[in-house]
Amino acid sequence: MEEQLCRKLESAMNLMSTRWVGLILYEMLKGPKRFSEIEANLPVSGRLLSERLKMLEKEEIVTRSVFTEYPIRIEYALTDKGHAMQPVIEELEKWAEYWVQVDHHEFSN
Amino acid sequence: MEEQLCRKLESAMNLMSTRWVGLILYEMLKGPKRFSEIEANLPVSGRLLSERLKMLEKEEIVTRSVFTEYPIRIEYALTDKGHAMQPVIEELEKWAEYWVQVDHHEFSN
Repeated sequence: MEEQLCRKLESAMNLMSTRWVGLILYEMLKGPKRFSEIEANLPVSGRLLSERLKMLEKEEIVTRSVFTEYPIRIEYALTDKGHAMQPVIEELEKWAEYWVQVDHHEFSN
Repeated sequence: MEEQLCRKLESAMNLMSTRWVGLILYEMLKGPKRFSEIEANLPVSGRLLSERLKMLEKEEIVTRSVFTEYPIRIEYALTDKGHAMQPVIEELEKWAEYWVQVDHHEFSN
């Protein structure tokens, strides 16, 4: 494989590979979300979700906006780079729906 | 998210998340390969590649065929389930090519 592409693809794989990143992106593709909304939809602890969102902010995949209303509102939204992941997530979802049999898989945290 | 789909997607994410799995699939989409051919194209140790191929065999994504010629030939090929990953890999490749800047990323093994 051409080396630069190999490194880019590896970097993308590393990102997708981080536990919960794919599911967080899946949730956020539906539109901007508050922390508590994402938390409510995924079986992930608040601490871990917060870590992952910070990581995604650093990668410029997610933005965090603070609205100075009362009570304060903090919203997370995908950037263009984040939205561009939509086809990846959709294709993975199709594959998983057709090919993955959850009853035959073990799950661990 | 609907729970069963969530678990299926999570399972697929776990698989893709295993280091080198994506790049191994990328290499194998081009056609059946001998172990040494895959090894030559990826910056991965033989031991790790062997582990990953065993895992992919167990997941029914890869088949291993032994040809009793001399010298013995062992070939790895994708199953239908493996080939069905093609759109996922292709979309991830497009995303990586456009959005990932390798010079600004750190790499570690």
